Amino acid sequence: MSDGQKFTDVNTYGEFGLIDHLTNSFTNLHENTIKGVGDDAAVIKNVKDYTVLTTDMLVEGIHFDLMYSPLKHLGYKAVVVNLSDVYAMNVRPSHITVSIALSSKYSVEALEELYDGIQAACSMYKVDLVGGDTTSSPRGMAISVTALGTTQNFESITFRSGARKGDIICVTGNLGASYLGLQLLEREKQLYLSDPNIQPELDQHSYLLERQLKPEANKRAIDYFEKVNLVPTSMIDLSDGLSSDLLHICKRSEVGAYIEEGKIPMMEEVKKVALEFNMDPISCALNGGEDYELLFTIDQSKIEKIRFMPDMHIIGEIVDASDGTTLHTTGGNIHRLTAQGWHHF
Amino acid sequence: MSDGQKFTDVNTYGEFGLIDHLTNSFTNLHENTIKGVGDDAAVIKNVKDYTVLTTDMLVEGIHFDLMYSPLKHLGYKAVVVNLSDVYAMNVRPSHITVSIALSSKYSVEALEELYDGIQAACSMYKVDLVGGDTTSSPRGMAISVTALGTTQNFESITFRSGARKGDIICVTGNLGASYLGLQLLEREKQLYLSDPNIQPELDQHSYLLERQLKPEANKRAIDYFEKVNLVPTSMIDLSDGLSSDLLHICKRSEVGAYIEEGKIPMMEEVKKVALEFNMDPISCALNGGEDYELLFTIDQSKIEKIRFMPDMHIIGEIVDASDGTTLHTTGGNIHRLTAQGWHHF
Repeated sequence: MSDGQKFTDVNTYGEFGLIDHLTNSFTNLHENTIKGVGDDAAVIKNVKDYTVLTTDMLVEGIHFDLMYSPLKHLGYKAVVVNLSDVYAMNVRPSHITVSIALSSKYSVEALEELYDGIQAACSMYKVDLVGGDTTSSPRGMAISVTALGTTQNFESITFRSGARKGDIICVTGNLGASYLGLQLLEREKQLYLSDPNIQPELDQHSYLLERQLKPEANKRAIDYFEKVNLVPTSMIDLSDGLSSDLLHICKRSEVGAYIEEGKIPMMEEVKKVALEFNMDPISCALNGGEDYELLFTIDQSKIEKIRFMPDMHIIGEIVDASDGTTLHTTGGNIHRLTAQGWHHF
Repeated sequence: MSDGQKFTDVNTYGEFGLIDHLTNSFTNLHENTIKGVGDDAAVIKNVKDYTVLTTDMLVEGIHFDLMYSPLKHLGYKAVVVNLSDVYAMNVRPSHITVSIALSSKYSVEALEELYDGIQAACSMYKVDLVGGDTTSSPRGMAISVTALGTTQNFESITFRSGARKGDIICVTGNLGASYLGLQLLEREKQLYLSDPNIQPELDQHSYLLERQLKPEANKRAIDYFEKVNLVPTSMIDLSDGLSSDLLHICKRSEVGAYIEEGKIPMMEEVKKVALEFNMDPISCALNGGEDYELLFTIDQSKIEKIRFMPDMHIIGEIVDASDGTTLHTTGGNIHRLTAQGWHHF
């Protein structure tokens, strides 16, 4: 918080006035939101048959650093990472609740920024904020979001457990950018801490930074599946890293998989910046995490349906569990994949 | 954690193995829980028309102190305070998600205790744990629970906003015990910190302590309403204190209220211990909070229906908003009620 910025103490409003203040500019987009914020609980009319429910918590010092995470982006990201989990079930999210614990060093203005980001995500993804809790914390901030979506059609829900031998493995977008965005931010932070007069050099890396600070969930893929009438056999969102998330599918589906190094989508910028950090670009793609792209499998006979799917890449095939889960390198070697994704402890 | 206790590092299992380990003894009680823990999201079949959704976060150092909160009780309480919000809508809870952030100082055994309490609450209140997140925190613990319940009948959902002039104000159970339980625990903690050889003297106050450490949600009241076919005009659960929570009803219903001091239910033990702390017992009942009893209003014409309701007390009446929200003391004075409940900032 720079000098001269307005600082309104959160106690000005009291806990309840504060929630009202922060949420009164939110409008509900879903007709079935009967009661949103403001009672013991929200009420949602069930117009569809199945509810999909997920929750995720972001903790300061673990999942974000307020030295370089703008609060608005943080609010946006906290919502998006949850919506991504609903999309990964092949379902559109409709409602969220948000709980925030924060210390008294944060002003009402800081909370307003955070809620601006939450509102931007609600508007972008057409979800209604229907509840939450704003409470204090002795130090640091934690944001817990629960997201809910519904569908009429049980057969269209995509679990991690449905991959079968011979299925094609596909991934959307490109990988590794978010992780390298984080490395850039960490590097600039260290430089800044050593000499606050150094200006950050981040402008030429805006794509990588945006992937880290303000990721998007892939709702276009879900729209596409509906359009071509395709249900993937399994799907997961890439939060922990391709390697770890593919292993989740393999474990739940009781299968193995191989993926080809040369097919893994990466931006040129990812390759360039990885080398700056003396990192192997493929490791960033495999283990970086926080890509929020979708990893899915489809039956080989359905391949025609995805031939024209935008920004989608076929990277491998499901095999027998006994064949393990492996990476075929461009050099012709075979490596066993291990879960090296986010270790939060 | 005392010496000699088993300490298994949480990294032993990895994030995903850990969730499996902690939740594999949970069994789903609801047939409509199609998919619980273990995918991007849970799937619940909607067999009833309306979903009620609430969320709450408990933060170490604000809402609980691990010096005197056994982890099992803490897990139980984190669930119960959310279920209480669903009951306060006159709806039975059915599903929960639980997110926990904790530092690496906690062992797997500690988490197991916490989940034992979560499981005990799930079993007691017949709710299914269908998702969650276990992540780390630089220090301290935070538990965020989301609870969901469903009902067929919209007319039976009880909001804060339905109280009308002339309605009778009722409260279940007794008030102030949880707050005094907290005072006792704080006093013993200070004594212990000043001299660790002092043995705590808490045995004779087990009721007050249990109300603080392991509160229950009032599902019996909801069963009773159904049995006698009564829908309260408004209802709220007493988490912030009678005074603050009555003001919520008055604000949302755009009415005033008076309650009579002499009618507010308090245990003899509450009166006795309050005096030990030089506190006014009525202040403990009005402003203590965390009672998790139900405060509700009913139409005067329905009074016969609650005449035999167990453990229920008529404490006042709804009046015009212009008459304010007041306490009539046994001495014949009238005090305006103010929100002096929990201040979390």
